[in-house]
Amino acid sequence: MPYAHKVSSDEKVHLKDVDSSKHDKLTKDIADATTEKLGEELSDLQDLLFEAGTHSLLIVLQGMDTGGKDGTIRCLARYLNMQGCRVASFKQPSEEESKHDFLWRIHQQTPATGQCTIFNRSQYEDVLVVRVHNLLPKSVWKKRYDDINHFENNLYDANTIIVKFYLHISKGEQEQRLLDREKDVDKSWKLSVGDWKERELWSDYTEAYEDALRKCSTDCAPWYIVPADHKWFRNLAVVETLVETLKPFKKGWHEKLVELGKEQKKELAAFRAKKA
Amino acid sequence: MPYAHKVSSDEKVHLKDVDSSKHDKLTKDIADATTEKLGEELSDLQDLLFEAGTHSLLIVLQGMDTGGKDGTIRCLARYLNMQGCRVASFKQPSEEESKHDFLWRIHQQTPATGQCTIFNRSQYEDVLVVRVHNLLPKSVWKKRYDDINHFENNLYDANTIIVKFYLHISKGEQEQRLLDREKDVDKSWKLSVGDWKERELWSDYTEAYEDALRKCSTDCAPWYIVPADHKWFRNLAVVETLVETLKPFKKGWHEKLVELGKEQKKELAAFRAKKA
Repeated sequence: MPYAHKVSSDEKVHLKDVDSSKHDKLTKDIADATTEKLGEELSDLQDLLFEAGTHSLLIVLQGMDTGGKDGTIRCLARYLNMQGCRVASFKQPSEEESKHDFLWRIHQQTPATGQCTIFNRSQYEDVLVVRVHNLLPKSVWKKRYDDINHFENNLYDANTIIVKFYLHISKGEQEQRLLDREKDVDKSWKLSVGDWKERELWSDYTEAYEDALRKCSTDCAPWYIVPADHKWFRNLAVVETLVETLKPFKKGWHEKLVELGKEQKKELAAFRAKKA
Repeated sequence: MPYAHKVSSDEKVHLKDVDSSKHDKLTKDIADATTEKLGEELSDLQDLLFEAGTHSLLIVLQGMDTGGKDGTIRCLARYLNMQGCRVASFKQPSEEESKHDFLWRIHQQTPATGQCTIFNRSQYEDVLVVRVHNLLPKSVWKKRYDDINHFENNLYDANTIIVKFYLHISKGEQEQRLLDREKDVDKSWKLSVGDWKERELWSDYTEAYEDALRKCSTDCAPWYIVPADHKWFRNLAVVETLVETLKPFKKGWHEKLVELGKEQKKELAAFRAKKA
C-alpha cells in the first residue's frame, strides 16, 4: 500500500482535502524500522543503477518553507552512495542565470547515466514564486507548464527516471516549526523574516501548487504528494516511493552487469594464459 | 593519539616501513563504535562549516587500486550532509580536458565556501600514473610538485581547509582483495584486468607516492598516511583526522552564527511590531 499519493494525469488536486498528518496508524518506531529496511533496498538499487550506467535518476523536492526538503535529503543521504548522487539547490537565479531561459540553469544540473541528482527546489519555482509574487506576467508563466512537460519528457527519453515529491504540511504545522526554530537558541540563525512573510501568501502558494501538480504529473514524470507533518512518515513515504519506482529496472540492470562480469573474466583468463 | 600519520614537510617517507595493518590493539567493534561517535562530531562540524559559510573543505583520497577510496567515501557519506558535500572523481582526462593544463579540470571542482568536496583521485594522478607509465617526459612532470603546492596554497588563501589521505595497503592485502572480488559472482563485473596489470608496477607506484608525499605535504595542505589493511581502522583514522582538523574552527563558526541569529531576531521583532 503506497504511503504517498501519486497524482494522476490531469487530476484536480485539492490540497486541503489531502491529510498532511496521515500516518496509517504507524508509530514512529515501526515507521523508522521500515524506512531502514527499505533504505537498504534503495541502497542496493542505486548501486545497480550506478554500476549498470544505463539510466539516471532525478528526484525533485518541492514544498512550502519548513516542509522538510532538507530533512528528506538528510534521510536519503543515509542510503544513497554519494559517489553516484548529488544535490542541486536552486535559489534565486544569479545575474548570469537570469539572462537565460528559465530551464537553462536546470538543464545543467540534470544527472548523467549512472548518476542520481536530488533537486532541492527546481524548475517548478518558475511557476510558483514567480506566479505568486507576480514577477512575470501570466502570459509568460502560464506557458511554462507545457515547457516543463516537454523538458521532462526529453529527459525521460534519455533514460532519466524522474520522481517528483510535494512535501505536504499543514499551515498549523508550519507555524509550529517556525516557532520551534525561534526558540532554539542554537539554531536562531536559521530564523528568517522571509519565511514569515511568505507564510502570508499560503493560499496563493497552495493554488499555484495545485496547478503545477495537476498540469505536470505525467507518466514520464509523476508527482507524489507526501504527507509530511510527521517527519518519520514523510521519510518512509519518500523511501518507499523510490524503491517502488526503481524495482522494475532491477532485473535488467543485473543482467547487464552479469554479462559485463563474464567479459571481464574472459579477458582476465586471456591475460593469465599469456603470462603463464 | 592520532591514528593516521601526518607527513612532515620534506619528510622522507619509506612506505615499506609504515605498518599498513596497524590497528593499535583495537578490535573492529570498539573501532566502529569510536568511529560512530567521532562521526557525529564530524557531522556537527560540517553543519557549522555549511551554515557559517566562511571556509570550504577539500578532502583528497589517493591510494593503490582496491586501497579503499570508495569504501572511505561510503563511510564519510554516513556523517556528511550531502547538501553541503559532493564527490569529484577524476578518471582518465577527456579529450576536452587534455587540451588544457593538468590543473584546469581540478580547479573547476574545488569547493565554494560552506561546501565540502571529496576528490576521488586528484591532481596527484599527474605525478603518479603519468610518471609510472612515462606518459610525459620527466622534465614535464617533475615541475608539477611545485605547481601543485602553489595551487593548494592558493586554495588555502581562499579559506579552503585541505586534508589529503594516502590509503596505505600492503601488496599482499591488495592481492587478497582482487582475488575476493573475483570469487564474488555478484561483483564479478568489478573485476578488471587493468588492476592486475597495474599491480605489476607496484614498486614504481610506491616510489612515485613517496615523492608526492614528501614534496607536497605542507602546512596548508598536509598529507596523512592511513593504515588501511583493516577497513574499520582506516575509517576510524580518516574520521578522527577530519574531526581534529576542523575542531579549531568550531568556536569562530559558532560565534559568527550567534551574531547572525541576533540580527535575524531583531529583524523579526521589527516585522512583528510593524504588523501589530
